[in-house]
Amino acid sequence: MQSIKAAGVIGAGVIGSGWIARFILNGIDVFIYDPSKEAPKYVNKVIDNAERAYKNLLTSSLPKKGVLSFSSSISEVAKSSEIIIEAVPERLLIKQSAYAEIESSAVKSLIIASSTSGILPSDLQAEMQHPERLLVAHPFNPVYLLPLVEIVGGSKTSKDAIEKVTGIITSIGMFPLHIKKEIPAFIADRLLESVWREALWLVNDDIATTEEIDDAIRYGFGLRWAQMGLFETYRLAGGEAGMRHFISQFGPCLEWPWTHLMDVPEFTEELIDKVSNQSDQQSGQFSIDELMEKRDDNLVDFLKVLKDNLWGAGKTLKEFDDSLSESIIKSEFSELNLSGPLLTFSTKIPKEWADYNGHMTEARYLECFSEATTEMMSIVGADEKYIANIGSYFTVETHIRHLDEVQIGECVNAKTQVIYGENKKLHLFHWLYHDDGRLLATAEHMLIHVDLKTRSASMPNDLVISRTELIYDAHKKLPKPEGLSRAVGDKF
Amino acid sequence: MQSIKAAGVIGAGVIGSGWIARFILNGIDVFIYDPSKEAPKYVNKVIDNAERAYKNLLTSSLPKKGVLSFSSSISEVAKSSEIIIEAVPERLLIKQSAYAEIESSAVKSLIIASSTSGILPSDLQAEMQHPERLLVAHPFNPVYLLPLVEIVGGSKTSKDAIEKVTGIITSIGMFPLHIKKEIPAFIADRLLESVWREALWLVNDDIATTEEIDDAIRYGFGLRWAQMGLFETYRLAGGEAGMRHFISQFGPCLEWPWTHLMDVPEFTEELIDKVSNQSDQQSGQFSIDELMEKRDDNLVDFLKVLKDNLWGAGKTLKEFDDSLSESIIKSEFSELNLSGPLLTFSTKIPKEWADYNGHMTEARYLECFSEATTEMMSIVGADEKYIANIGSYFTVETHIRHLDEVQIGECVNAKTQVIYGENKKLHLFHWLYHDDGRLLATAEHMLIHVDLKTRSASMPNDLVISRTELIYDAHKKLPKPEGLSRAVGDKF
Repeated sequence: MQSIKAAGVIGAGVIGSGWIARFILNGIDVFIYDPSKEAPKYVNKVIDNAERAYKNLLTSSLPKKGVLSFSSSISEVAKSSEIIIEAVPERLLIKQSAYAEIESSAVKSLIIASSTSGILPSDLQAEMQHPERLLVAHPFNPVYLLPLVEIVGGSKTSKDAIEKVTGIITSIGMFPLHIKKEIPAFIADRLLESVWREALWLVNDDIATTEEIDDAIRYGFGLRWAQMGLFETYRLAGGEAGMRHFISQFGPCLEWPWTHLMDVPEFTEELIDKVSNQSDQQSGQFSIDELMEKRDDNLVDFLKVLKDNLWGAGKTLKEFDDSLSESIIKSEFSELNLSGPLLTFSTKIPKEWADYNGHMTEARYLECFSEATTEMMSIVGADEKYIANIGSYFTVETHIRHLDEVQIGECVNAKTQVIYGENKKLHLFHWLYHDDGRLLATAEHMLIHVDLKTRSASMPNDLVISRTELIYDAHKKLPKPEGLSRAVGDKF
Repeated sequence: MQSIKAAGVIGAGVIGSGWIARFILNGIDVFIYDPSKEAPKYVNKVIDNAERAYKNLLTSSLPKKGVLSFSSSISEVAKSSEIIIEAVPERLLIKQSAYAEIESSAVKSLIIASSTSGILPSDLQAEMQHPERLLVAHPFNPVYLLPLVEIVGGSKTSKDAIEKVTGIITSIGMFPLHIKKEIPAFIADRLLESVWREALWLVNDDIATTEEIDDAIRYGFGLRWAQMGLFETYRLAGGEAGMRHFISQFGPCLEWPWTHLMDVPEFTEELIDKVSNQSDQQSGQFSIDELMEKRDDNLVDFLKVLKDNLWGAGKTLKEFDDSLSESIIKSEFSELNLSGPLLTFSTKIPKEWADYNGHMTEARYLECFSEATTEMMSIVGADEKYIANIGSYFTVETHIRHLDEVQIGECVNAKTQVIYGENKKLHLFHWLYHDDGRLLATAEHMLIHVDLKTRSASMPNDLVISRTELIYDAHKKLPKPEGLSRAVGDKF
């Protein structure tokens, strides 16, 4: 995976700003050229939105933010960047003139990736001195959340440019889809345009309102497409006989006179009014900011669902998140420092852990402690494989003191002392700390080793016994934790 | 909302079986006619899939299952049912002959809802004796999960039929979308057909494979469409200026020669081979059953996300789930029986509450107890409104005994005794029971009343104080709960 230190972005509208947020939050410095005075304000707002979304999306911490610099010319950007993202308006001449300015001051090897949603890369590169450096990298709004980037080379694009951009895009958590043959509008926008045209006809002919059309999508096939797309969904409709059965049966329907086919609805004032008014009626009760927030919340939660289910866009997210995780906890048993409590947990508090009091809810404290217990089990050798084959520890008793509050997005860590650890019994004491050093809570647990087939108490295996005893021998020399053996309501 | 006791389904393929699962699991008896010998096996498999999905989808319990009866003729079905769902093959004559057979034995008022995905209701009802009873109710696969049903009346359909079917559909958790003007293929399938045709061209011309097309959808706009559809998404692309700005800017793109427009790709053997082989390459590593399971898991989790975010299809789910919940807990304060512990919680254990030991994970025990505490707070008057305006109770100390395991899909309930309740302090003891009577766990909590602005201890208001004291006065006469005041590791 190619990772870079500085990127240039020409044009900071919806798409350009989305790219900027992706780069900045991945620790990459960004040099921006946009003639609009409003650009810095808008860019910062998009970065804020992206940070808000990532707080909930990722379990790992992002690197230190990159530095944002607004440049006064395209040449300045070109001199400072390792790649240029071009996101200027969709006119061939405007784009070509930006490329000319880049080429006048950039090194020969600087790659230019155009965000065009439809113009052929061969046309974009036609007038360039070094056309091999130009390709299309077409992302989708909101760029900081949707993983898709269509990668399309022109007839003169070098293989090296495609490979380099593919690597960069992967390193910032996106999904590069390399389209091998040039075609106007590539793949996704051709599909979108088909639907858009048909939908406009439905509105134009008063068959349905914009809201009814949106409902027909999001209460139905939209839910299928977010995970499987078109062909895999239809494969299921074919049943055991699969796609061949489906296409033989359904194919002929294409001959039916369903859609408006070649007609394009004329863009009369009347049609523009109709669509705009219906859209106001449908969504006007929300501001654009409110809608964007809702959209991002839904997208984040969908992506997390897909990550949990190891499916589609969630796989891309998982790979990215895993690549960020520094695995600060995992270490070899022999390297453990047993002269104090062990670090057993760290996380950033996700949105859904909050309650009506506006802070992390009580059950999630126990979830943190439960994770710390799991890590302690793993340290002594009762890991996933052990649990699948030999046994596990069940918690039989728990005591928690809630000492301080913690808010969503904040980072916490846990340390663990073994109070007793012999035979079937494991007695643990955990401290949960805010990363700023405040003690948030303590927990005391009694665990019993259990055979998962008989579901009754059993002896751990020799490795687990010996490791537990090693830690217990070291930890019994430590002071007794403050708060140990308390009952609820004891005087302080 | 119209609810019925018996429905008839003619044709038990993918769509018919989906309807059957919806009805049966909503406690409605179903009479089925399907000439295929395989039908009962297939229907039961679809019901199994639906039950598996609902276990995770719903927090409330469904009513007792309806009874499934396979009939030997269409007339037999017609005599026993309050509504007929017709889901026979998509040929006008087959459908019309089914209607004739229904009409020969049914009462005049029996409504027939066709699942056709494209035939006009006016054509369907053309030869009927009582055409006013016929309408289209077009659902989407998997019918037991996707809420959308397109409702379309023909020129002779009665308003009463439309209203009745709308009510029935709502009562089984679906979203009826009434399309006011007849048009072949209605809304969703017109949009789908546009995309399908364009996608087939892309495969035919070797621009992209089936997998690349699916990826272009599910890594990008598919994620948008699952929540907002087309127009609301584009409204966001228009920024603060909204849809009017977007459509004025983007509209002209429609004139571009992007899509294949009127051409329909010819269904040669070569094209069928290409699509089928690419689909095998893409998805062949999964069986159809595995793909369906994955699809259902993703759909369930998407719907739950949308329910949590109160958005789109999730609103329909929430309304349905709420309508199922019998609110066994909520009661007026004056009607409470204070001579024993109070019922404060009940739920069915959802999938994501399981851990690597295959049972409900420890933190979710605390979540159950936390819900019981919230309900006790609400009983004494510290409800949502109180928390928003006056204060709340924070848990400062917790003791839990884990006594027995509970598996996902099982039902539990909690009872609560007030151990102490005066001034700022509230000391509670909860029992968590399996619905079969087993005691699963107990919890003891000390709570302190807090001012949410200063985040420090404060007095509750008079109502909360007086209600708490009333319960405390009654509960202090009860025996001390077994396990009260234990510290972790105390001898039993």
